[in-house]
Amino acid sequence: MHIGLIGLGKMGASMRARLRENDVTVTGYDRNPDVSDVATLQDLIDALPSPKTVWVMVPSGAITKTVITEVSELLGTGDVVIDGGNSRFSDDFVHAALLAEKGIDYIDAGVSGGVWGQENGFALMVGGSAASVDRLMPVFDALRPTGPREESFVHAGEVGAGHYAKMVHNGIEYALMQAYAEGYELLAKRDDIIKNVPGTFKAWQRGSVVRSWLLELLVQALEEDPALTSIEGYVDDSGEGRWTIEEALANAVPVPAMSASIFARFESRQEDSPAMKAVAALRNQFGGHAVKSAE
Amino acid sequence: MHIGLIGLGKMGASMRARLRENDVTVTGYDRNPDVSDVATLQDLIDALPSPKTVWVMVPSGAITKTVITEVSELLGTGDVVIDGGNSRFSDDFVHAALLAEKGIDYIDAGVSGGVWGQENGFALMVGGSAASVDRLMPVFDALRPTGPREESFVHAGEVGAGHYAKMVHNGIEYALMQAYAEGYELLAKRDDIIKNVPGTFKAWQRGSVVRSWLLELLVQALEEDPALTSIEGYVDDSGEGRWTIEEALANAVPVPAMSASIFARFESRQEDSPAMKAVAALRNQFGGHAVKSAE
Amino acid sequence: MHIGLIGLGKMGASMRARLRENDVTVTGYDRNPDVSDVATLQDLIDALPSPKTVWVMVPSGAITKTVITEVSELLGTGDVVIDGGNSRFSDDFVHAALLAEKGIDYIDAGVSGGVWGQENGFALMVGGSAASVDRLMPVFDALRPTGPREESFVHAGEVGAGHYAKMVHNGIEYALMQAYAEGYELLAKRDDIIKNVPGTFKAWQRGSVVRSWLLELLVQALEEDPALTSIEGYVDDSGEGRWTIEEALANAVPVPAMSASIFARFESRQEDSPAMKAVAALRNQFGGHAVKSAE
Amino acid sequence: MHIGLIGLGKMGASMRARLRENDVTVTGYDRNPDVSDVATLQDLIDALPSPKTVWVMVPSGAITKTVITEVSELLGTGDVVIDGGNSRFSDDFVHAALLAEKGIDYIDAGVSGGVWGQENGFALMVGGSAASVDRLMPVFDALRPTGPREESFVHAGEVGAGHYAKMVHNGIEYALMQAYAEGYELLAKRDDIIKNVPGTFKAWQRGSVVRSWLLELLVQALEEDPALTSIEGYVDDSGEGRWTIEEALANAVPVPAMSASIFARFESRQEDSPAMKAVAALRNQFGGHAVKSAE
Repeated sequence: MHIGLIGLGKMGASMRARLRENDVTVTGYDRNPDVSDVATLQDLIDALPSPKTVWVMVPSGAITKTVITEVSELLGTGDVVIDGGNSRFSDDFVHAALLAEKGIDYIDAGVSGGVWGQENGFALMVGGSAASVDRLMPVFDALRPTGPREESFVHAGEVGAGHYAKMVHNGIEYALMQAYAEGYELLAKRDDIIKNVPGTFKAWQRGSVVRSWLLELLVQALEEDPALTSIEGYVDDSGEGRWTIEEALANAVPVPAMSASIFARFESRQEDSPAMKAVAALRNQFGGHAVKSAE
Repeated sequence: MHIGLIGLGKMGASMRARLRENDVTVTGYDRNPDVSDVATLQDLIDALPSPKTVWVMVPSGAITKTVITEVSELLGTGDVVIDGGNSRFSDDFVHAALLAEKGIDYIDAGVSGGVWGQENGFALMVGGSAASVDRLMPVFDALRPTGPREESFVHAGEVGAGHYAKMVHNGIEYALMQAYAEGYELLAKRDDIIKNVPGTFKAWQRGSVVRSWLLELLVQALEEDPALTSIEGYVDDSGEGRWTIEEALANAVPVPAMSASIFARFESRQEDSPAMKAVAALRNQFGGHAVKSAE
Repeated sequence: MHIGLIGLGKMGASMRARLRENDVTVTGYDRNPDVSDVATLQDLIDALPSPKTVWVMVPSGAITKTVITEVSELLGTGDVVIDGGNSRFSDDFVHAALLAEKGIDYIDAGVSGGVWGQENGFALMVGGSAASVDRLMPVFDALRPTGPREESFVHAGEVGAGHYAKMVHNGIEYALMQAYAEGYELLAKRDDIIKNVPGTFKAWQRGSVVRSWLLELLVQALEEDPALTSIEGYVDDSGEGRWTIEEALANAVPVPAMSASIFARFESRQEDSPAMKAVAALRNQFGGHAVKSAE
Repeated sequence: MHIGLIGLGKMGASMRARLRENDVTVTGYDRNPDVSDVATLQDLIDALPSPKTVWVMVPSGAITKTVITEVSELLGTGDVVIDGGNSRFSDDFVHAALLAEKGIDYIDAGVSGGVWGQENGFALMVGGSAASVDRLMPVFDALRPTGPREESFVHAGEVGAGHYAKMVHNGIEYALMQAYAEGYELLAKRDDIIKNVPGTFKAWQRGSVVRSWLLELLVQALEEDPALTSIEGYVDDSGEGRWTIEEALANAVPVPAMSASIFARFESRQEDSPAMKAVAALRNQFGGHAVKSAE
């Protein structure tokens, strides 16, 4: 199997490495010549055997759209494009239609695993035609961890299903992190009672109901910095979490834990909360409660 | 009508003033001799006609308990003690039993109105025996606003009902403030669209579905300081809000808006969030996402 | 002043009535000939003096778009169209651009007051050019309650500001209702303590911190049906609440109370919760906890 | 090592079995003679070598208190009592003091692992004196899973630390379950997109960021019943979740995801929501929105 891979950032580069370790031939292209295998997109396409397979691994939104449009002009009937980035599933319908005009098939692939994927393998959720998914199975098998295929790969449905599944995955991920984080604060707050916070988390790694990979990562972080003194409580969000809430709203699905998780991140990035200024102002008005003056 | 009033702080002093304006004779006692009408608690009791009525208006918890215990030793059968402070309703059962041993009746009164009560009147929720509530009606009528009695006074039930109702009132109050505060932040955030935030709130004072007294207070605050620049987003909580959530937990009542309101206050008081440190640490571990270093 | 009014449903009809009571001439058009003043849209336009003013009061989304498009073909330079429906503020930009092509000015007006507006007046938040807003002031003054103009009317900004303000107003409204509703459940749950739930709410109408128009409506509802036995706990949402959360997400504004309010409505409409099925299944798997069998 | 074990319910019985498999001698006592090894509590005590070790594994609250009181009368200086049940950590201080009067040492042990613990081992969090914890290490080692001790055992602090840690563990557990459950509902809702919900969860078991033991259990549940049609969305809570929120309130720790999880359970048990009746009534009052009549 020989595929083209566009986008050799953190994720793209480790995917290229893992694919090669597992005997998939990869020609990689990136705008950065230092990491690119070829000089131009045309070179990439020329290097591939037909039917050509191009895996796109670039930032979602405008950049993904541009790349897919460019690629669509270089490929033809029977070829296939896979979007493995974190695109919104609604973009998939647009991209699939664009490519279908030229007879190019489209697969959307949600990829989970982070920086550990190169070593451990990536979990894959894909959407698209059975024919293309079947043909690309050697690629998916090379990327995913060893073990039974169905424990790290799913053909979740037609176009869009892969990214929809990944979006939900990320919503869950946000809420899982929030769960451990609230627990961390509760343990750390009572240092008169709990004398060993990292050790308490560590003791949950085997046998406990809350054991998980995220727990292991938290233990690792706490072993490096037991009170997390070197880290500020400032947390970005990359968009998928918001999409999950938007989809929940569109479908009347209550997601109180997921939304709590994303609002906590918003708050973490505020120097001062306008809403809480308003509450402080109100308390001052009706109760004569003192307010803290901003300097 | 002639009653004793113990505790002449912000609330006690304005209640004394309003009672006197409405022809109730009040002998006030406070540990601070500058505001007290009499030198000692014994003097207060001696000044009252029988059956004696003592209204206690001191901080809830240990101080209220101490004062009620002291008073119980100076009063006797047929007298009545009213706790008008923000006591937890569960304390009422204890206090009522303590007083009942000496034949003293007990009334719990939830009082709402804040610093505006002296002028506007206070809303009253009371619990206890019909006999004592009826006998004290001139006091309640003097304290409450003009207008139909049932629009500012309720005999809500037996002992505990007054403070239970006040506790729920305060839980509602927290959530109402949070509602306006979230709206304020949404309006203020889009200053590219909304050019007049104070004016928008002000335009809701008549005719709109969200008109309320709290809205009027917010308008007042925004007229004094349109972007609330002088106020820090730091908000205390006085305990009743927490009790409301505890009661909700004890009775399996879902209170997501009330709990959101109190958690927002907790967050407002944190320099840095331990929970968000943990989330930042986790993202760093699995995704190589940069963390902000605490200096 | 003489304006045209398109859409004579519940809201449109009461606005027509209030305008006429306050000496604004109104020609109304509705697809339903029983309530319409004229037979066709063309008749409506023909009836108006120049510059012509057309107030659109139809369901937001596709219908509003269709009506505005039709109207744009019948009006010309110097005329003005007002969208007084519950449109999303982002639609305003589209509609304004569409009309601007023909020299027609556009005003967006958020209208609050519900079925009580005909009698009490409506609160108005408007966006658009100062020139048109000024020219239409007699219409706004006729619609709004008596009292100082700024307490029921705001020119909040350029096009979009009126509907943005109304959207936030409705987000607040959802959370206010949720606040009282949680309080209702807490009072009703402890009927061993609170013997008079309607009376407790009623006693908050004067003097209390939580007094509001919604509180008065709740008192009215409870006086008609003290335990709300005739009403099912099933609550629709009309869209604006969702938009508020979407805007909060887009602008990284935490809105935990507003989102709790909308999720509570979603839950109210579920026969059985798929999420809670999953939690029940999980508890059964790890703890052997019994599950309730669905019949 | 030879210990006494009081309480041979689901958890107690599997602990006895695991201890015996790992060469700890156990004399078990239960009020149910069918499962008890001895006829009376006195027999249990008599069977133990000195210093005597008694592990109590009975329902928390009144029953645990009664058992510990009874045991305190039969033991003496140098003996030790372990409470391995789900007691509130605040009870530990009372029990420790009670036993200390007779020179008996007290250890509190949080035990996680559910019905799978007998086979996999239990995760243990203990509080108490180092001397007793050290002496009892063979018991802890027999109960916990194989692997490094610190991955399934922690001596978290003095008396109370074990149950405090377990309480936080359960709060986390609630929120983790809620996270997966919200994800489940989002996947199941869009069956037009996601054609294989169980397969999607299964594909997260290896390589994904959200992999965990709870995920594996959910996969198992979905393999048995892919749409969970046989299970009602009705979820009990056993108390620890509530304590976690209460502790969060007492310590001003924001726990929005944990509280969302417990409120979701409360809602799952309501036939009809009183709060939502109130919201429906309000909407009907101000907007004339139709309500659903309860039959």
